[in-house]
Order: sequence, then C-alpha cells, then structure tokens
Amino acid sequence: MAGNSFGSLFRITTFGESHGKAIGVIIDGCPPNIEIDEEFIQSELDKRKPGQSKITTQRKESDTAQILSGVFEGKSTGTPIAILIPNEDQRSKDYSHIADKYRPSHADYTYQQKYGIRDYRGGGRSSARETAARVAAGAIAKLFLKQQGIEIFAHVSAVGTLEAPNLDSTDLTKLLDVRESNIARCADPATANEMISLIDSVRKDGDTIGGKIATIIRNVPVGLGEPVFDKLHADLGKAMLSINAVHGFEYGSGFSGSEMRGSEHNDIFVKENERVLTRTNFSGGIQGGISNGMDITFRTAFKPVATIMRDQNTLNEAGDNTSISGKGRHDPCVVSRAVIIVEAMAALVIADHLLRNQAYAYGK
Amino acid sequence: MAGNSFGSLFRITTFGESHGKAIGVIIDGCPPNIEIDEEFIQSELDKRKPGQSKITTQRKESDTAQILSGVFEGKSTGTPIAILIPNEDQRSKDYSHIADKYRPSHADYTYQQKYGIRDYRGGGRSSARETAARVAAGAIAKLFLKQQGIEIFAHVSAVGTLEAPNLDSTDLTKLLDVRESNIARCADPATANEMISLIDSVRKDGDTIGGKIATIIRNVPVGLGEPVFDKLHADLGKAMLSINAVHGFEYGSGFSGSEMRGSEHNDIFVKENERVLTRTNFSGGIQGGISNGMDITFRTAFKPVATIMRDQNTLNEAGDNTSISGKGRHDPCVVSRAVIIVEAMAALVIADHLLRNQAYAYGK
Amino acid sequence: MAGNSFGSLFRITTFGESHGKAIGVIIDGCPPNIEIDEEFIQSELDKRKPGQSKITTQRKESDTAQILSGVFEGKSTGTPIAILIPNEDQRSKDYSHIADKYRPSHADYTYQQKYGIRDYRGGGRSSARETAARVAAGAIAKLFLKQQGIEIFAHVSAVGTLEAPNLDSTDLTKLLDVRESNIARCADPATANEMISLIDSVRKDGDTIGGKIATIIRNVPVGLGEPVFDKLHADLGKAMLSINAVHGFEYGSGFSGSEMRGSEHNDIFVKENERVLTRTNFSGGIQGGISNGMDITFRTAFKPVATIMRDQNTLNEAGDNTSISGKGRHDPCVVSRAVIIVEAMAALVIADHLLRNQAYAYGK
Amino acid sequence: MAGNSFGSLFRITTFGESHGKAIGVIIDGCPPNIEIDEEFIQSELDKRKPGQSKITTQRKESDTAQILSGVFEGKSTGTPIAILIPNEDQRSKDYSHIADKYRPSHADYTYQQKYGIRDYRGGGRSSARETAARVAAGAIAKLFLKQQGIEIFAHVSAVGTLEAPNLDSTDLTKLLDVRESNIARCADPATANEMISLIDSVRKDGDTIGGKIATIIRNVPVGLGEPVFDKLHADLGKAMLSINAVHGFEYGSGFSGSEMRGSEHNDIFVKENERVLTRTNFSGGIQGGISNGMDITFRTAFKPVATIMRDQNTLNEAGDNTSISGKGRHDPCVVSRAVIIVEAMAALVIADHLLRNQAYAYGK
Repeated sequence: MAGNSFGSLFRITTFGESHGKAIGVIIDGCPPNIEIDEEFIQSELDKRKPGQSKITTQRKESDTAQILSGVFEGKSTGTPIAILIPNEDQRSKDYSHIADKYRPSHADYTYQQKYGIRDYRGGGRSSARETAARVAAGAIAKLFLKQQGIEIFAHVSAVGTLEAPNLDSTDLTKLLDVRESNIARCADPATANEMISLIDSVRKDGDTIGGKIATIIRNVPVGLGEPVFDKLHADLGKAMLSINAVHGFEYGSGFSGSEMRGSEHNDIFVKENERVLTRTNFSGGIQGGISNGMDITFRTAFKPVATIMRDQNTLNEAGDNTSISGKGRHDPCVVSRAVIIVEAMAALVIADHLLRNQAYAYGK
Repeated sequence: MAGNSFGSLFRITTFGESHGKAIGVIIDGCPPNIEIDEEFIQSELDKRKPGQSKITTQRKESDTAQILSGVFEGKSTGTPIAILIPNEDQRSKDYSHIADKYRPSHADYTYQQKYGIRDYRGGGRSSARETAARVAAGAIAKLFLKQQGIEIFAHVSAVGTLEAPNLDSTDLTKLLDVRESNIARCADPATANEMISLIDSVRKDGDTIGGKIATIIRNVPVGLGEPVFDKLHADLGKAMLSINAVHGFEYGSGFSGSEMRGSEHNDIFVKENERVLTRTNFSGGIQGGISNGMDITFRTAFKPVATIMRDQNTLNEAGDNTSISGKGRHDPCVVSRAVIIVEAMAALVIADHLLRNQAYAYGK
Repeated sequence: MAGNSFGSLFRITTFGESHGKAIGVIIDGCPPNIEIDEEFIQSELDKRKPGQSKITTQRKESDTAQILSGVFEGKSTGTPIAILIPNEDQRSKDYSHIADKYRPSHADYTYQQKYGIRDYRGGGRSSARETAARVAAGAIAKLFLKQQGIEIFAHVSAVGTLEAPNLDSTDLTKLLDVRESNIARCADPATANEMISLIDSVRKDGDTIGGKIATIIRNVPVGLGEPVFDKLHADLGKAMLSINAVHGFEYGSGFSGSEMRGSEHNDIFVKENERVLTRTNFSGGIQGGISNGMDITFRTAFKPVATIMRDQNTLNEAGDNTSISGKGRHDPCVVSRAVIIVEAMAALVIADHLLRNQAYAYGK
Repeated sequence: MAGNSFGSLFRITTFGESHGKAIGVIIDGCPPNIEIDEEFIQSELDKRKPGQSKITTQRKESDTAQILSGVFEGKSTGTPIAILIPNEDQRSKDYSHIADKYRPSHADYTYQQKYGIRDYRGGGRSSARETAARVAAGAIAKLFLKQQGIEIFAHVSAVGTLEAPNLDSTDLTKLLDVRESNIARCADPATANEMISLIDSVRKDGDTIGGKIATIIRNVPVGLGEPVFDKLHADLGKAMLSINAVHGFEYGSGFSGSEMRGSEHNDIFVKENERVLTRTNFSGGIQGGISNGMDITFRTAFKPVATIMRDQNTLNEAGDNTSISGKGRHDPCVVSRAVIIVEAMAALVIADHLLRNQAYAYGK
C-alpha cells in the first residue's frame, strides 16, 4: 500500500530515484505469448527521454531499456517482465544547493514531512524520471493491445491558452504521423508551430507553462470497466492524475457537459452495418462506467513545471526564510514529452480491464 | 476485482440493486473505539434521499440505516460494520416498458453486453441508489475524521452555466449552515435562489441539467498520500469519477492552471505562527501527491441526468429501432443531492490515507 | 486489510458477531448467469448449523439465508450477492459471567489487547458462527464449480487418535452419501460409529477432542494456481488455516512425504486414453503450485474446542487470578460440522483460481 | 494477481528466471529510516547460495546483491527498495536434453499447459533460484524486526525419519550459533552429524530426501494478525507453503494437537513479573489468529527434491513415452539451504502484520 504499483491483473510496480543507480519496472500479469518487440519499447522511451529537442530539458539520458526476465525467445512467458533503465547523467552536484531547501510547488517539503528523510537529488522518487518506467511498461501493454486491435492516440491539444482546433479523427495513424512530425507533438501542424514559438519564448523568459493533452482510444470492445468503483473512466482518471503535474481530468463531454441539458447530451443509439453505435459521443465511449464500443475520449490538464530559472523565496528545513535560484536542466513545458506517458498509462488501464473482463467470461 | 469495493485499509464494499430487497455496505477497517452516532448517519442519509424537495425526484424512500455488526455499546470494535438500507418504494411495474429497451446514455446497453443478463428495474446496480450505501459508509468515515479534527465541506458551485461567486471560506461551519438553508445546497444564498428557479424551469421542460460541486477539506495533517500512483489527488479523483454522472475532476488550479506560467503558479512557502504555509494554494493542498497541510480543494463536474421526460429514439435488445418515453420519477439535476455523496467519498479517501500513513509511522 | 475478505476475483467479505443482529457475506465476483439454487444454499447451511445432532452444540439457530442482491430471476447477474443470516438464539446473558475474564485458548485476551474493546458475548467475531457466512458463500462457489464439472468431497478422517482407513475414492458421490448417513460425517461407516461413541464419551466427561478432515477435489482443469506466492496449495492452506481451530495443513504426501526419498516420491507421467496422468499422486494434484489434472488431496488438523465443561484457572482484565466454569452450549468436537466449512473454503479457492486463470487466457 | 507479490503493506514482488540475466525483488513499504546493512543482506544470501557445502548442489553462484534504489546514505527512505542479483553460472546447455520433456514431479508439464510457453532452462521461474530474491527481501524485513526487538530462529529439525530432540530454546542466539556451526543447519550437534551422513549417503545413491524445519519467533508484540481470514498463522502458513517443495505446515500443537483433549490442550493464563503469559504454549503464540506475546512456533515439511541422478520414465510434449536421465547439479536435500528461506518468509509476514496493526492504532 505504499503506492508504487498500478493495476490489478496487468499490474506494474516501479522503482528508482532520479539520481540513483537505475530506475525500472516489473510488469506482473502480462499474458503469455505476446511478441515483445524491444525496438518498439525503445522507440517509446525515446519519445519521452530528455534532451530530444530544444523545447525539452537538456539533461541527457539514453534511457536504454534492458529486459531482465519474463521474455523467452522473443515472447512473453506469463512470468514477471522486469525492465531496467540505468541512470547515466546523474550530476548530483547540481542539487547540493537545494539539499536543505524546500523548492516551491515541488515535493521536497511533503516528502521530508512524510518520511523524515529524502533523497534530495533531483527530487528523488518524485522526479518525473519515474515516468520512464511507466513508458516501458506501457509499451508492453501497447503490444498486447495491438494484438487485440486496439489503438491509442494522444497529442498536445493546448499549451497555455493556445488551443488546437478539433481534429478529424477518422484516421488515427495519420494523426500520429503528423504529431510525430513536430517537436510539440500536436497533431495540428499550424498550432504546433505556434506552440513551439510560445514554449521557446517562455523558456527564454526563464519561465514555464502548462498545457493539455487529448486522448482517443479506439476499438475497445464493449464491456470493459466495472460498474461501481472501478468504472473505466475512474481508473483512467486515476491513471492520469497519478502523472506528475496533472491537475485535471475529464472524459467525454467533461466539464462543458455539466453546462448542457439532458436532451442535448443524451447519445442516441443507432444501428449501422450490424453494429450498435451512438449518434453523438458525449459519453466518451463509456456508459455506466463500461465501454460501449465508441471511441473513448478524455483530456488531461498539466500545470506549469515548478522549476523556473528565476529566484524565488522559500523556507529551508530549519524553517528559516531563504531564497532559491533556478539552476539545473528542466523543461519549459512538459506536455510534449508527457504525450507518451499519457498513452502508456491509458494502455495499462485498458490492458488491466481486458484481463478483468476476461476473468468473468465463464458466465457468458 | 469486480469493483464493488473502495479503499485499502479503510475499505468499503457496497451491494444491492435499486429494486431488490435492500442495499447496504460493509466497512472493513474502521479503527476501534470510534463513537458511532447513529443519528448522524441517518441525518447524512436524509440529505441524499429522494423526495426531499421539489427539485429532486419524488420517489419516496425513508432510507433507514440499520447497523448489523461491528458496533458494541455505541463504539466501533474494529470488526466489520455492516449497514443495511431496505428498499421500500420499489414499484417495479414502472420499468416494464423499458425491460428490453436501451435507454440513451444509461448503462442498459453496456450492462447487457458485459453480463448477458441485467436487472432492468431502475437500472439495477447502476442506479444512483447505490450511493446511499456510500453515504452511510462516508458517515462512519466522517465520525473518524471528526475525532482527528478534519473538516469536509462541499456545495453546489454551478448549475448549468450559472456559477456561484468565490466564497470566503474562513468558517466552514458557517458555509455549511448557509448550504443547508436552501434546497439547492449552494453556500451562496443569491445564487442558490437562481439555481432553484433554473432547475425548476428545466424540470417543467421535462429536461435535465448538469452542474458542479466544489469541495474543501481542512486540517488534513501533512503527509497523507503515497508518492507515485496513489497520490492523494489521484485517489480523490478516482473517488469522484466513480460517482454516477461525474464527467470531470480537477484539484487546486485545475484546468485553468494549465493556462498559467510557473512564475505565477508556484506556491511560495512562508512560516506563520510556527506553521509552514504557502502564500497561495494553486497546489490545492497537495504537493507531489502528498498533503501539505493547506486546504485541499477540488471540483467535480456532473453531466445532466440521462432520464428525461421526453420521447427519445433508441434500440431494443433485438437491435430494432424503437422509442422510449420518459416515465418514472427522476431528478432534473442531481448536484443538490450529490453534495453529500461527494463529501462521503472524500471522507473515505482521507480516512484510508490516514490509516495508510499511520502504518509506516514505525520508521519516524 | 482488516482481513475480513478472502479471494481476489471471486471475493467474499463476511461480517457479524455471534450475538449481534445478523451475520452475513457479500460475494463480489461471481460470474453472471450461474443458476442460484437457494435450496442448495440452505441445505449446506443445515449441515453446519448447531443443534443438528447429539454430538454438536445444542445452541439452536435456524441459520436461514436471505439473498438480498445480485440474483435476478434465479440467476446471478455478475453484481455482488449479499446473503444475510439473522441471529436468533442469542441469549447474551449466558456470557455475563465471562465479560471480564479471559477464557483459556480463546481469543478474549488477544482481541482485548488488539482493539482495546471487544464484544464479549460468545466470542463476538472470533466465534465459529462467522463460518456460517463462509458456508453460504461456499455454496455459491460450489454452484459455479458444479457448472464446470468440478467435485469437492471432504469427510472426518480422524477424531483424536481414531483414524479412518484409506477409502476407495472412485465414486465421490457414493462416499458423500455414506458420509451424510452418519452424524460423525465420516465416509467409513464402521469408523463413524466408533467416532460417535468416542465424541459422546468425551462430551460426558465435560471435555472436548480434536480431529482431522480429509479432502478430495476432482476434475480441476490443468493450470490453476499461480507459480510463486499464490501457489494453489498455498491458497488452499491459507483458506484452511483461517478456519477456527485449525492447527495444521498438508497436501499430497504431506508431512509423511518429508520422510521419503525422491525415487519413491516422484510421480511418473503416463498417458491413458489420451489423457496425461501420473501413476502415483504424491504431488496431490499440484506441481509447481499449479493443478496437473489429478485429484487434489489435502488434510486439515483441528485442535480440541477450547470451551470445556470444567473449571479452569485464568486471569481477568485487571490481571488478577480468577477461575472460569464451563457454561453455555458448545461442541465436544468440531470436525463433523467443520466438514462443510472445509468444503466451502476449498470451493472458494478453486473458484477464485478458475477466474484468475481465465483472465490470462488471452495469450494462449 | 499473477501471484509474484507477497504481503500487503510490507510488500515484495520478485522476478527472474534461473537462467535469465538476473533475478531480483522490489520491497515496497519498508518504513523509512531503517538502517540498511548491506553486509547483513549478503550474509543472508550466502546461507542460501548453492555450492556452499558438500551436501548442497555444486552449481556456483556468488549471489551478489545490488541495491538499486530506496536507500539513501545507508537508510531506507520509504520508497521502493529494488535489489538485483545477476545470474552468473547459467550453463543453459545443461538443459537442452530436457527442453521438450516433462520431468517427473517438476513444474514442466503444468507450466507448459498453463502458459503454452515456458523457459525450460533450469525450470525457469519455478526454480528454487527465485528464493534468493525472497532471502534478500527477508533480510530487509529482519533489519526492521531487529529494530523492534523481534528474533526469528529456524533450524533443520528432521531429515527423512531422523528427528532432532526437543531443544532448550531459552537462548536463541546460542542455538543460532550451534546451527551455523554445522552444514546441516541443525541446532543439535549430534543429530546434525547424523543428518550429514544420511544426506551424503542419499547423494551417493543418486537419490534425494525430504526433511522438516522448525521455527521460533520471539518478542512479537501482542495483537498481530487479523481475526478472520488473515489470521497470523494463516499468513505464516501461506508463506511457508509458497516455498518450493513444502508439503505441510503446522503451528503450535499442530497435527498432534488434533489427538488431544481440550482439558490438556488449553493454555492457562498466568501473570509473571507484570506480564501475561500462558503456562503451556499449545497455541503456538497465536490465539484467535492474533499473537498473544508467547513464542510463535511452527514446523514446515519439505518433500524430497524431484531431480534425482537416476533414469526415469516420462512423457515428452508430444505425449510420447520417453526417459530422462539425471544430469545437472542439484541438492540431495534442500532443508539446510531452506532454513534461511523459512526465516525470510517468516520475517516478511511479521513485518507486514506489524504495519497492518500499526495502521489501526488511531483507535486505541
């Protein structure tokens, strides 16, 4: 219950501090006989890794994944898959100036109070570096979902107040290509350019900025999600809110749905080509907590990164006033790198619910 | 993993369909020697129960809670507390007209597909009636929190696009009194009146409308929440998203925080009267997933109720087109009754994390 | 984690004290569309209930099960099945003489120390009465197993040093008939008679005696059990050791297997009628923690009941010496009633592992 | 639910196959500020490692533990402790002759049937090599228990029918010294010599033999264990039964207790030096599933190792008759190496229940 595991049947446990020897993850419950494509795992990690473009932190980590167990002759065996990602560019000295200071809007103060001890180098366990382990695990989940024909697509839909227009989502592969063609990871090229300029100017200001990520999950079979507490969107919401810097989650109509009337919001069932659909999708593909076969859609809001390149007042561990100056290598805006984390967590939730639903297939 | 339990150490399991013999809950993990005030439990249920005002469903249920176990001479014994709430006003005949039809934006279709069988009377398990069990359990959690000096306050902050102004939250007891003085359960009296008029006009239209609930939790000790997946706000988010009709959750600065710069959003630490505070609270009382002692603040968005008093097209189980007419007794807007459900779920999350944090107190 | 739940996917939670209003159980995770035969559930409870014969306690409880939820038109719906068993013959006054005394080898002392409070009437939650809830849940599990063609048979194999001979287990139904033809619940008629005499003489002595129960589970599919910690026999062992008064568990060759050589103990694989078998079954149907399709066999040892009809020295809550005299209505030997509890717990373990195994069927 | 985790609050997850790159463990939930003595961890692993004496397998592994995370400046930080043990002496070629054969009484057949794939080298995940990860985790648990003053002692009490006499257990440290002075790990020197001769002669026969391990846990506080399903002895039993080759578990009076009368078996409470004790300890330190402060005592039975140096008939994957000859490097008797595994698992159970009990301390 110390909270480093996620999922019930497709379950991951992550470990590692940003400036320790390594971070990593154990995936317990991956079904056997899934093809484990190591290049794919690495390509996913590369999308998250620092130093990949001018709008991300310049910290350099190759983030090379090593599979230690659970894979035999290229296939999962049903036993735990352990993945190790050694830390390389640790530079602990960068952090000596904050060893006894509480950085504003970071986890320094709360960790120190909770545990009475903390690895102050780079935030220790609270560092976003932990999310590399999630991405590696998410890649395994995606390989399982791919086998089931399920697609996941996320992109940066907003940076600050700059919002991408609604996209034609008919072809997710095409959107993915557009997204990967720009360093902002926005699937609308024009907005992407504006985002890059905005982030760059924020960076030059020594400041940071928040943003939003929109996600679509397609071809999810009807019936995933448990009806009361483990509603599919509740588990997706928890997954998203567990990502560093996320302050909000909405699915389907979301917050704006709360401003609508039932007569506009209700999704009318229709049958097309022998398939039950809804004419609209304010439900975001989930009704009563259970997938209805339509696209699952949700949005995630990220606060601006707390580390800024400016002087800030704060307290030290003794409770005295002090100030802190922005040093080190940090992201002016996390959403471009976080897209792949959002996809990873979404994949883990869907994989888990596929197994949970399958467990009860006896009765059908 | 069938998802009818919530929490890990302070854990509840609910059961019961809207039109079965009874609904109820088992609370496993309530610490011993808590005073169990049965009148308080009943008063909480009364705030949720149907038929309490002209802007709620007219279905009549006394919702009388019976404690079956776990309490001895007025105190919790540390063993499971079972609470039973018999169903009274079942009127199953009201539902015969929808036995084989899928109501739009309800869970009829997804339940039928998931299970191959469903209790179609009143939505069975997907009925909001299940939340009465949560309120009873939440009342037990509140009694535990009260002993620890923790306060929870929620109110209706919006109905449709009608938003309450920001409130002075210095005195939560006073806000609670205002909230309970009006049937909208909004702590701003002027807005409350407008809300009541709006809901009433929506009801006369045979329509429904969504809304939002804002919550404050005060006096939470520093250190609650686990740092990676079980962040305090992630568990609060899941709790809220598990409530029927909730489509969005945000804490602290929330979605609007994603539009801010780090230099405005960072909460600067200060010391006042020997207590560490932050000057602003965009973090919503939670940093790195762990409570920092400031007020925990979050907002929850509810979609409009799916049952409307109008004719709608839909499909039946055979997949043929059919129509459905609005019958039965339903709420034009759920948020006024949902306030107490939000508080209950919040109390359950905090109680669980109090115990989880306590478990590791050995090391301090 | 307060420990009143058992199982992961087929999960039960029990509640209730021996002298409260009711005991009961929630079964969360029963697959949908299982025929729920209420008469069968009641007949199982009747085999456990007190007062059924001269060699059991004379406490009278009808132990009538009421299904409150989760069953619609005679079938499970996939939602939680709640079963209530009201307490009738409570006679709390019988216990006033022990309110502040610690009965030897009972749980009075440990409960008082653990919780700082206890319901001293009849042992509260530590009473074997709790097992009625397990039997009700086990009956549901048996209905599921029956659908899968799995049989469970247990009988009293020993009372004190009086051991039944090895049985021909070809026909479990026949053995069951023999077992139910005598009040000792031993499948060997001659030994049964001796057991009844022995228990009766022990009862007249005001004393109690221990015993053993042997169990066979047949037609379990190959592949149940998880390989490392949740080995099938480890979960069966925990299930058995969780039953009141159980002090030992062994499966397959058990303790005597530790005295053998590998060359005698190894079970040689053979193929008969297109089925893989082992020539011997020292493995007890489980290899590497996973069922191999052979009969699963295990034995459970019960200590003598702690309540005896004799005066005993003890301490009271103040720590002073006192004495306690045997009063109330108790069993001279529990094994005849416990047979059905053993079967119930075994059924719950197998049901849970059927679902767990099914969850991973994607990969095959 | 794939079963590679153990414990709830002090929770471990192991990974790794015998012939993969590494095995390892994540300990999630170790309290912060525990001194992590790496030499102690290594010394524990050394007691389990292969090749340590003439009566163990000659496979050579240095079993060097590397701590990857969760420890900062010699102390636990409350975050996951990951320990890696690289595999060195893999010699996969040794196993090519059994790649498609089912070794008798091994897990080859059941793994193949369960997963449809298996790493056949050395048993893959079913290899006892996995237990090195448990020993490393158990060492962490022992460091926590040591801080709490709790002692654990296990030794080989029997090999085949050769049983050690009852020991004077007044001084566990002294017994431990005797145990470590002989390669049989029996705390009675005379019996130890006989055991060594017996195991050696069995080895020369190309055969294997079973044995028993007796355990004492001292200074456990009153109140550990949850009353219904998670009784302390039920969790200890599951822990022991999860160890490879264990076929039986008994605590306190165990199987022989089932042959006793209540009047002899009851443990009479007495007060000595202001401490509540029982005059006898047939309860094995646990009453109603909860520790009573007396020594916790239990015994574990191990079957003979399945790999023998003799030819045996069996089936191959195609279902044809074949034979298998004993090759490789295996143990004639596992109990001497298993002593430290038993202690490790016991330590993990006690650590977990210390935290669980602590969680509910609010109410006291």
